[in-house]
Amino acid sequence: MVKVTAHTALLAELRAVLGRGAVLTDPEVVETYRRDMMPLAAAGVPLAVVLPTTANQIQRVVRAAAAVGVPIVPRGAGSGLSGAANAIDGCLILSTTRMRSILEIDTANRLAVVEPGVVNLDLREAVEKHGLFYPPDPSSYDWCTIGGNLATNAGGLCCVKYGVTTDSVLGLEVVLADGELLRTGRRTVKGVAGYDLTKLFVGSEGTLGVITKATLALRPLPQAPSTLVATFAETQTAASAVSRIVRAGLVPSLLEIMDSVSIDAVERHLNTELGAGAGSAALLLAQSDLGGDAGRAEIETLEQLCIDVGADFAYSTSDLAEGRLLLAARRAVLPALELLGRGLTDDVCVPRTRIGDLIVGCAAISQRVGLTIAVVGHAGDGNMHPTIVFDPDSPTETSLAREAFDEILALGISLGGTVTGEHGIGKIKQNWLAKEIGPIGLRTHRALKQALDPMNLFNPGSMFTAE
Amino acid sequence: MVKVTAHTALLAELRAVLGRGAVLTDPEVVETYRRDMMPLAAAGVPLAVVLPTTANQIQRVVRAAAAVGVPIVPRGAGSGLSGAANAIDGCLILSTTRMRSILEIDTANRLAVVEPGVVNLDLREAVEKHGLFYPPDPSSYDWCTIGGNLATNAGGLCCVKYGVTTDSVLGLEVVLADGELLRTGRRTVKGVAGYDLTKLFVGSEGTLGVITKATLALRPLPQAPSTLVATFAETQTAASAVSRIVRAGLVPSLLEIMDSVSIDAVERHLNTELGAGAGSAALLLAQSDLGGDAGRAEIETLEQLCIDVGADFAYSTSDLAEGRLLLAARRAVLPALELLGRGLTDDVCVPRTRIGDLIVGCAAISQRVGLTIAVVGHAGDGNMHPTIVFDPDSPTETSLAREAFDEILALGISLGGTVTGEHGIGKIKQNWLAKEIGPIGLRTHRALKQALDPMNLFNPGSMFTAE
Repeated sequence: MVKVTAHTALLAELRAVLGRGAVLTDPEVVETYRRDMMPLAAAGVPLAVVLPTTANQIQRVVRAAAAVGVPIVPRGAGSGLSGAANAIDGCLILSTTRMRSILEIDTANRLAVVEPGVVNLDLREAVEKHGLFYPPDPSSYDWCTIGGNLATNAGGLCCVKYGVTTDSVLGLEVVLADGELLRTGRRTVKGVAGYDLTKLFVGSEGTLGVITKATLALRPLPQAPSTLVATFAETQTAASAVSRIVRAGLVPSLLEIMDSVSIDAVERHLNTELGAGAGSAALLLAQSDLGGDAGRAEIETLEQLCIDVGADFAYSTSDLAEGRLLLAARRAVLPALELLGRGLTDDVCVPRTRIGDLIVGCAAISQRVGLTIAVVGHAGDGNMHPTIVFDPDSPTETSLAREAFDEILALGISLGGTVTGEHGIGKIKQNWLAKEIGPIGLRTHRALKQALDPMNLFNPGSMFTAE
Repeated sequence: MVKVTAHTALLAELRAVLGRGAVLTDPEVVETYRRDMMPLAAAGVPLAVVLPTTANQIQRVVRAAAAVGVPIVPRGAGSGLSGAANAIDGCLILSTTRMRSILEIDTANRLAVVEPGVVNLDLREAVEKHGLFYPPDPSSYDWCTIGGNLATNAGGLCCVKYGVTTDSVLGLEVVLADGELLRTGRRTVKGVAGYDLTKLFVGSEGTLGVITKATLALRPLPQAPSTLVATFAETQTAASAVSRIVRAGLVPSLLEIMDSVSIDAVERHLNTELGAGAGSAALLLAQSDLGGDAGRAEIETLEQLCIDVGADFAYSTSDLAEGRLLLAARRAVLPALELLGRGLTDDVCVPRTRIGDLIVGCAAISQRVGLTIAVVGHAGDGNMHPTIVFDPDSPTETSLAREAFDEILALGISLGGTVTGEHGIGKIKQNWLAKEIGPIGLRTHRALKQALDPMNLFNPGSMFTAE
């Protein structure tokens, strides 16, 4: 009874702060904010969804929620793949999607200042007009938000040459658990004044605060790409090509791998042929953005190297439309798989020399559990996304999918890898985080969480439990 | 009396753990470990200097010191410029210089695993044999240690293209305040499992733990450089050239600026002429490491741009010996100034558009205090090092030098900059850190310090005070 009254009073306060249209409690509407894109993660029932438009509103929401002990789960567009943005029972879902202003583009100093709800693609297009480039490009770049990208330290296809989100962040504004506004970082290229709080908040998955503003470093717009596709009869031959590329000191702007299951799915889906025809075990897709002769030369070097290693087929082009088509094929893997069933995308990163072993190991896991597993990945940095296809209406398949998901993580660790290259821990891999970082690592995480969020207000139980 | 007994017992225990030759108490020897290279920072008298050779020894030192409340100041080679490694009274100086093994160079995955006492240049040379490159190159690269580089998040000339130390670190092993061994990060290129503890420890200036091992990302060895030198009659013209380079989307591998005072000092010292002769207000030095035609083309583009903006003189070369000589002139600024008196090197980073304002402002400060101030800096990232020349035996000049030092920081902040681009806060800029990050930032720092080092064991009072 006390609780109900407290919740009623909280909702009234939130409506006073945010306006009635920014506090959603209708169950059908709330339902659409309960989950991200990870099918297996738990999702509770939130008390309400709030849609603030200013940092000050967020400060007031945080203080009001803290006063009655109602937890807050920060959320961007919900494109995440770890359940980090999933609701917990009785929480407030705090979505920053209405904070979508690009506040500043400083071309002379190559930086942008943005609100967290700005969609990744909108930022890309806005800075491109000034000849500038914001590298992080997760698959969901046309609908995910910068706030979500920051919270998960998102990656994408760009990482092999341009790094992940944290490499593009200069500074943040964050609402802390006590409602105070923290400013981290700087507007300059370099700076070492104090602890690197910026990079502590990036990738903290909404467990330490709510990001309300970000200062992002931009790069010069790359040159038009040259593109290479090569197919291989053996997975390990394709993997050798990747190792040779690394050893040769080449840094293409994109280097992706698809296994035979992915190739087949895409070829059927797009009704096209990607390489040497039926029977290819693996496909490499590479781009150079050096431009002009340099770009063509880099791609030709890659092509020759693939042929030397034993590619069945290799084709390079500087035609932009062709390059886009090849890239579209890579991006079509997930939609193609979704025609076969629900896709459960895993995320492991292994040393670049172990990519072949990971793909071969996934084929063995697929055999054992009897579910299709397609592996695509960012070969250039060893970050692989085995995707398990299953029928979510079948409890057996769902359970087997979960089994395969975990076996892939165990395989990744056994190959010297990590249980998440870019999707995060969220509400699906907490046990795996504990396994990877060990008891001292976990204790350190808990100490930091306790220091910054002593009431365990932000996204409790996500990433790790408080005790 | 109790204290003396406790200290005697501690020293006996340390000798039992480390061996007699690794616990130094002779005042003359200890004196050489009391300070780094920042003349104005306070330095206390340590109880002893300890020289462990293993992580396990460090764990035992930390536990023994913690048991009797004796603080620990971690130290590398002592090349720092903020007093961060300076002793405080009654502390243990824990120098990691005897831990100098390169444990592994994994060429296939482009990484190295090293102990903290490895000298930067030794690592560079070791990986170069494998066609690999460790970018961070602080001025002291031929004697500073990787451990010190990590603790200060060191930069150098490479940063304009390759970033600072934190950008090259994949994982760490750290002894925590309770003596436990924490492993952070990973061996893979990407990874987002948990908070980014690695980047929290990098740049924490020995206040959070003792780094005992590091996994470092390596790059392909760059191509032989092409070099450009250009001189300008007006500081702001040189600054415009820098802005134009940034706007044009060019990313040279090196872009340094020297003001007239630096030019004159070097020309006198080396008895050479660097450009247009007497009267140049500023000199830009740039390199491209794209190699071959691409490198030459990039340098020619830079050269043309300098001429278009109004350079008096511009000269480019792909001759390696000439390039080395020009770079040696840049590196000779500090030795040249030291012939005139003691050099007090400041460190501010400003937006790249404000470099001219900073140099002009420093000239005004020089006028006002009556001391020579030479400005050199990493123009490509706005990180400027105004160096004040003073007579350390003159209390008046010492006081004026400190005054100028602070005025430069105030100027840097007023231009939108930070009070340290790469040297750190240490025991000289604590008040400036507080000013830059504000009370919420300071409180956040203290909360994190309290979480990881509740007894305030590591480098207390450096960077910020506990209360």
